[in-house]
Amino acid sequence: MTTGHRVAMLGTGLIGDFYTMTLHGQRSRDRVEVVYSRSTERGAAFQQRWGVANATTSIAEAVGHADVDAVVIGLPNHMHEEAVAAAVGVGKPVLCTKPLGRTAEEARRILDLVESAGVFGGYLEDLVYTPKTVKALDSVRAGAIGDVMWVRSRETHPGPHSAWFWDADQAGGGCIIDLGCHCIEIIRSYVGKGNRPVEVMCWSDTLVHPIDAEDNAIALVKFESGAIGQFEVSWAFRGGMDLRDEVAGTEGTVWANHFLRTGLEMFSSGAGGSYVAEKSETESGWLFPVADEAADLGYVNMFSDMFDAIDEGREPIETFYDGYVVNAVMDACFRSSASRAWEPVELDWRGGTTARLAKPARVEDGLTVIKEEHLPDGRRKLILKDPATGKFVDRIM
Amino acid sequence: MTTGHRVAMLGTGLIGDFYTMTLHGQRSRDRVEVVYSRSTERGAAFQQRWGVANATTSIAEAVGHADVDAVVIGLPNHMHEEAVAAAVGVGKPVLCTKPLGRTAEEARRILDLVESAGVFGGYLEDLVYTPKTVKALDSVRAGAIGDVMWVRSRETHPGPHSAWFWDADQAGGGCIIDLGCHCIEIIRSYVGKGNRPVEVMCWSDTLVHPIDAEDNAIALVKFESGAIGQFEVSWAFRGGMDLRDEVAGTEGTVWANHFLRTGLEMFSSGAGGSYVAEKSETESGWLFPVADEAADLGYVNMFSDMFDAIDEGREPIETFYDGYVVNAVMDACFRSSASRAWEPVELDWRGGTTARLAKPARVEDGLTVIKEEHLPDGRRKLILKDPATGKFVDRIM
Amino acid sequence: MTTGHRVAMLGTGLIGDFYTMTLHGQRSRDRVEVVYSRSTERGAAFQQRWGVANATTSIAEAVGHADVDAVVIGLPNHMHEEAVAAAVGVGKPVLCTKPLGRTAEEARRILDLVESAGVFGGYLEDLVYTPKTVKALDSVRAGAIGDVMWVRSRETHPGPHSAWFWDADQAGGGCIIDLGCHCIEIIRSYVGKGNRPVEVMCWSDTLVHPIDAEDNAIALVKFESGAIGQFEVSWAFRGGMDLRDEVAGTEGTVWANHFLRTGLEMFSSGAGGSYVAEKSETESGWLFPVADEAADLGYVNMFSDMFDAIDEGREPIETFYDGYVVNAVMDACFRSSASRAWEPVELDWRGGTTARLAKPARVEDGLTVIKEEHLPDGRRKLILKDPATGKFVDRIM
Amino acid sequence: MTTGHRVAMLGTGLIGDFYTMTLHGQRSRDRVEVVYSRSTERGAAFQQRWGVANATTSIAEAVGHADVDAVVIGLPNHMHEEAVAAAVGVGKPVLCTKPLGRTAEEARRILDLVESAGVFGGYLEDLVYTPKTVKALDSVRAGAIGDVMWVRSRETHPGPHSAWFWDADQAGGGCIIDLGCHCIEIIRSYVGKGNRPVEVMCWSDTLVHPIDAEDNAIALVKFESGAIGQFEVSWAFRGGMDLRDEVAGTEGTVWANHFLRTGLEMFSSGAGGSYVAEKSETESGWLFPVADEAADLGYVNMFSDMFDAIDEGREPIETFYDGYVVNAVMDACFRSSASRAWEPVELDWRGGTTARLAKPARVEDGLTVIKEEHLPDGRRKLILKDPATGKFVDRIM
Repeated sequence: MTTGHRVAMLGTGLIGDFYTMTLHGQRSRDRVEVVYSRSTERGAAFQQRWGVANATTSIAEAVGHADVDAVVIGLPNHMHEEAVAAAVGVGKPVLCTKPLGRTAEEARRILDLVESAGVFGGYLEDLVYTPKTVKALDSVRAGAIGDVMWVRSRETHPGPHSAWFWDADQAGGGCIIDLGCHCIEIIRSYVGKGNRPVEVMCWSDTLVHPIDAEDNAIALVKFESGAIGQFEVSWAFRGGMDLRDEVAGTEGTVWANHFLRTGLEMFSSGAGGSYVAEKSETESGWLFPVADEAADLGYVNMFSDMFDAIDEGREPIETFYDGYVVNAVMDACFRSSASRAWEPVELDWRGGTTARLAKPARVEDGLTVIKEEHLPDGRRKLILKDPATGKFVDRIM
Repeated sequence: MTTGHRVAMLGTGLIGDFYTMTLHGQRSRDRVEVVYSRSTERGAAFQQRWGVANATTSIAEAVGHADVDAVVIGLPNHMHEEAVAAAVGVGKPVLCTKPLGRTAEEARRILDLVESAGVFGGYLEDLVYTPKTVKALDSVRAGAIGDVMWVRSRETHPGPHSAWFWDADQAGGGCIIDLGCHCIEIIRSYVGKGNRPVEVMCWSDTLVHPIDAEDNAIALVKFESGAIGQFEVSWAFRGGMDLRDEVAGTEGTVWANHFLRTGLEMFSSGAGGSYVAEKSETESGWLFPVADEAADLGYVNMFSDMFDAIDEGREPIETFYDGYVVNAVMDACFRSSASRAWEPVELDWRGGTTARLAKPARVEDGLTVIKEEHLPDGRRKLILKDPATGKFVDRIM
Repeated sequence: MTTGHRVAMLGTGLIGDFYTMTLHGQRSRDRVEVVYSRSTERGAAFQQRWGVANATTSIAEAVGHADVDAVVIGLPNHMHEEAVAAAVGVGKPVLCTKPLGRTAEEARRILDLVESAGVFGGYLEDLVYTPKTVKALDSVRAGAIGDVMWVRSRETHPGPHSAWFWDADQAGGGCIIDLGCHCIEIIRSYVGKGNRPVEVMCWSDTLVHPIDAEDNAIALVKFESGAIGQFEVSWAFRGGMDLRDEVAGTEGTVWANHFLRTGLEMFSSGAGGSYVAEKSETESGWLFPVADEAADLGYVNMFSDMFDAIDEGREPIETFYDGYVVNAVMDACFRSSASRAWEPVELDWRGGTTARLAKPARVEDGLTVIKEEHLPDGRRKLILKDPATGKFVDRIM
Repeated sequence: MTTGHRVAMLGTGLIGDFYTMTLHGQRSRDRVEVVYSRSTERGAAFQQRWGVANATTSIAEAVGHADVDAVVIGLPNHMHEEAVAAAVGVGKPVLCTKPLGRTAEEARRILDLVESAGVFGGYLEDLVYTPKTVKALDSVRAGAIGDVMWVRSRETHPGPHSAWFWDADQAGGGCIIDLGCHCIEIIRSYVGKGNRPVEVMCWSDTLVHPIDAEDNAIALVKFESGAIGQFEVSWAFRGGMDLRDEVAGTEGTVWANHFLRTGLEMFSSGAGGSYVAEKSETESGWLFPVADEAADLGYVNMFSDMFDAIDEGREPIETFYDGYVVNAVMDACFRSSASRAWEPVELDWRGGTTARLAKPARVEDGLTVIKEEHLPDGRRKLILKDPATGKFVDRIM
């Protein structure tokens, strides 16, 4: 057991709070030692909120602090490259929030920074680490649902919580950049991260907000195996944060609901009142509180993996290369939304090749079994195809 | 109260059984008087199963029978046109199962048959009539969720129950034709049937079956209002029949689960054993029986509407024109799947025009309110946009 | 097919509305011909609401009307005996709402009225007829969950909708009389109606209302087979109407949720607004509308059974004798609540005897297998009992 | 931040595994240094499984080990007193699994051991610490559901995993001792731990197993405030582990489902196969895996509270006194089950007094408002009671 890590936390927004709540939680050996904020006031408030020894308005000072051995970046997207460069400059492991960059080009530069310097880079994609996702991925990898054919990942809510998200220049886009990055990595995890994303079809629109960026998007991502990923993202959903994944395999199905229907349900007339969950819209009526947001959103598993990886000298589950792949898929989404056609995912692929998904055909009396079914009256029916003639016939058993 | 209708039932497959179970159910005044089957044996079995007075292997004889005043078609898709023509020929009201045709061109000819003869034509799209859909549509039309932005309609199961469905010539396609027709009409009902379907983007593939037709498809349907419909259909889903609709509006959300999670759950070691529901895969373990399939799938409401419409001299909720629109959308799906691009929906549109969906912007101190949010610590934050500069700012309250 | 029944509806309250909505619904051949109300005004409003030809303030006139061949009683509890007597007096089939009487003694007199006159008596216990209950009972009777060990039936809501319910003199009690009667008959249906209810233990209290009657109660009902029934009733529940049944059998489990979680979920900001369901408390936030209340509460199946039974000259599923048994159980509940001890159910039992429930023991190597379990690491463990020594041992496989 | 705790783990069964998995999990600073087992073989296997430095078959050696500063007891019930005495003898903080004793008398002696020695005693009641319970208790304590009227806590499964549980001598009883102890403490947490449990009514029976101990029980626990607790425990439930809590308050409702319906659902044809969750019965069909059992069952929060309490010199949330109260309630359950009557809870109460729960009455025009309701047609109805006459009237608004 090491003595734990001493962290420079860059950024004091909602994500900085979630990260620090996690790092300081549950008997952890790790602690935030320095916080960086562009604002002295927000830095001081953060120090007090989390009992952090040092605050600064200089990134260089934060990452260079003698007590710090790891850097966590929770800054707006347009500041990731600068912050990673600073951490790499002092040779310290760096963990960067999602998305890695605003474009694949930017993400590639960020990836090159850590790789050319030989510095540890961890991509803080928390939703791949939620307890439900981890458990489901274990089953999927054990073969419980056969070959994955389709993954739906949905993240929608009534819109993000800081001004910069809504500004396409700082963020690099709208809800695709904010939420689609999660979905893409969830989809990749289910279809296999060695399964190349080949091309993308995307629709996006700005339906209800007076902004330039998209507030709604749907995309299809086709993988080398033939599997199809589908993401749905929106900043206009009503009812809280809808965070669901669905997977169809040749031998089974997975449904994971991370937020709005998790088995904790409450009705309140509005008496008393209390925090329900991130992005919930109401504090009376039927409520669906999230039990432990830091754990349920994957932050706990994620930081455990990251710091264990540093300690063990291995790669984390989510690397800067993964962040770069995600940006490449999102670039294709933006291109497809504009061109109104399938667009190839352009990237430097390192993941090898994946065979076409398949299900072995069953043969009976020389005929291909298409389906076996129970009828309401208890009978069983075989649907058969004659490979010679191509004709289909029913056979009641 | 009239004395009820005497029906010629054309077809003795699963759908004929469901239709007759419904017509003969719950104190109904309506009865099947004649059944037509291509097979004498199946006709006789049907007669016995449902207590039907007459059977024939001639469509003309069935529709022309003196005791019959209405014709219900539950035949394979390639026989619809012939059967409708027969009913129209004897001037009797005709109700035709879905899809109306195999193509929009065929559907158009079928539509013209009833319209030029002035005969009543009812389109038997049951899933628009499920109790949950009817209830949800009432709320949506009353404005409870504002303007509809997005509808997801999903129907997936392990594949249909008769050989002809799997034969693209007889059916006109694969799971798009079999299941997509339901989804399209559900989507139209939520976005408004006067809301023109403008264009379609579709992916389809044959992932696991040794057939020519598609066994998986996803399509996006864009409507004149800007609303987007999304359907997911599959003949390769594992776990039963997944029949769900989701609607996002500017003021709310609807989720309807018609089959696998309806509040009736059972675990069985496998003792005893009994019919669970259409397309269920297992009779032990955790089961999700459907309480009353004829009612829950919409057949009861559908036939009530159809016969009431005949009695009252009005149009039913679902007409042959609706069936034609659905075929036109499916044609665009097949074209898009081939061209890999958005394809226009080509149809003779009768539904008028629909304005762009919108949500009025809220203004405070001359700034546009983008969002108001609760933070975990109880504070409230306004995100504001300055219309003059386009800049976004946070304001904590 | 008969021409249908012509009904005298006694009572114009919420239950009269539900009954009539059902009788006039979905292609029914049956119609209300006369309505009786104590109030001319309410009778006239009812006539207009449901298109009923005749109204009267005389029970005798209503039941004696020449167009009437069946009487339906939807009156407050203290008027049941008088109304049944009137119907029996004119020799017409009579269907009486629940509970049959305010006490077993009163119920017994009502039962004797129909039996001594040889008149058809149907007990309108709708919740035994809900589609989910009917489906689940089919499975239970087919043996899918083995011998029933335990049934929980819960009906709680924020309180009834008419003044007389709250008045213990007119009603015969509080929520036990109003809601417990449903639960008892649901429990009996699952454990078997030939399974004698032997004794009862009941707690009741008036926790939050300024009334004399109980507003909360829980009871245990022990049956001859050893099975235990448990009902929970309350007029103080918050969040709508909680109507759930749970059954544990030696080979399986049933969970039925009839109202608050049925697969139809809606979020509304409160725009538009529309009726959600009986006893719902709110029209904004997350809502759980009931799709088709008349069907989902069992009224449709119930009246079908009742009128079919009359037409076929058989007994209905729910008879006046069942109503009498329910009253006898409720009497024991009230006695137990007062005596704070188990009280015998005193009744004239006609149901025969039922054997003790059992599960055959499995024997391996002369040892009784108590349990076989999967461990997290994949091992299997047998827990065995030596019948000779009574010692228990683990054996890992 | 301290350097963490070094633990002697007494016991190597399933609970020892869960405890150690938790202690060694997620960046924890705490570690098991010594394991005690009655069996050298099981001790060695445990050492290897969890990387524990030392193993012994002597409790004295384990607790006295120089590297150990805290003792965790995961032994069968009949060994708790001996083990606590050993830990107290060496003056080290001791954490004991549930139930504390087999009887209140034994629990009292155990409590006295730590109190007279001034040693820290923590009661390892994990289910009070599940993330859902913690979140729900926060809301309840903030007043979100008003005064608590009723709590149902249910824990049922197909039976425990080690032979000694089934032996009433070693365990002190059957499923009441095994599972009821959890439920009682959950109930106490919701109604308030200062709310005295006054009396108990309990039914128990041995329905399906060839054992002397009860395999099914239901109990009602009445509290000083008038609130009622209800627990249902069984070793004969089919379908996995049913772990649910329901709370009714004057202003709201809580439903927590900890195991079988948590938003992670999977269908598998049985391919691959993998561990689903503790006590699951099947690996094919519809499965409901538990995402992270150690966290979801409360172990993570529990040990954090325990060790933080030691570090901070405060009491943990669950003390040996709580364990003693739980045993006192269970004693009353066993007495009640035998006497078939309400039995007082006999205990040395330290929790003060609690006022009768209440809801302020609303008055309008001098009349008490009993209820306000929405009717299906949109009207509102007030039910009023005249305090002078005691009469109830309806008033439609």
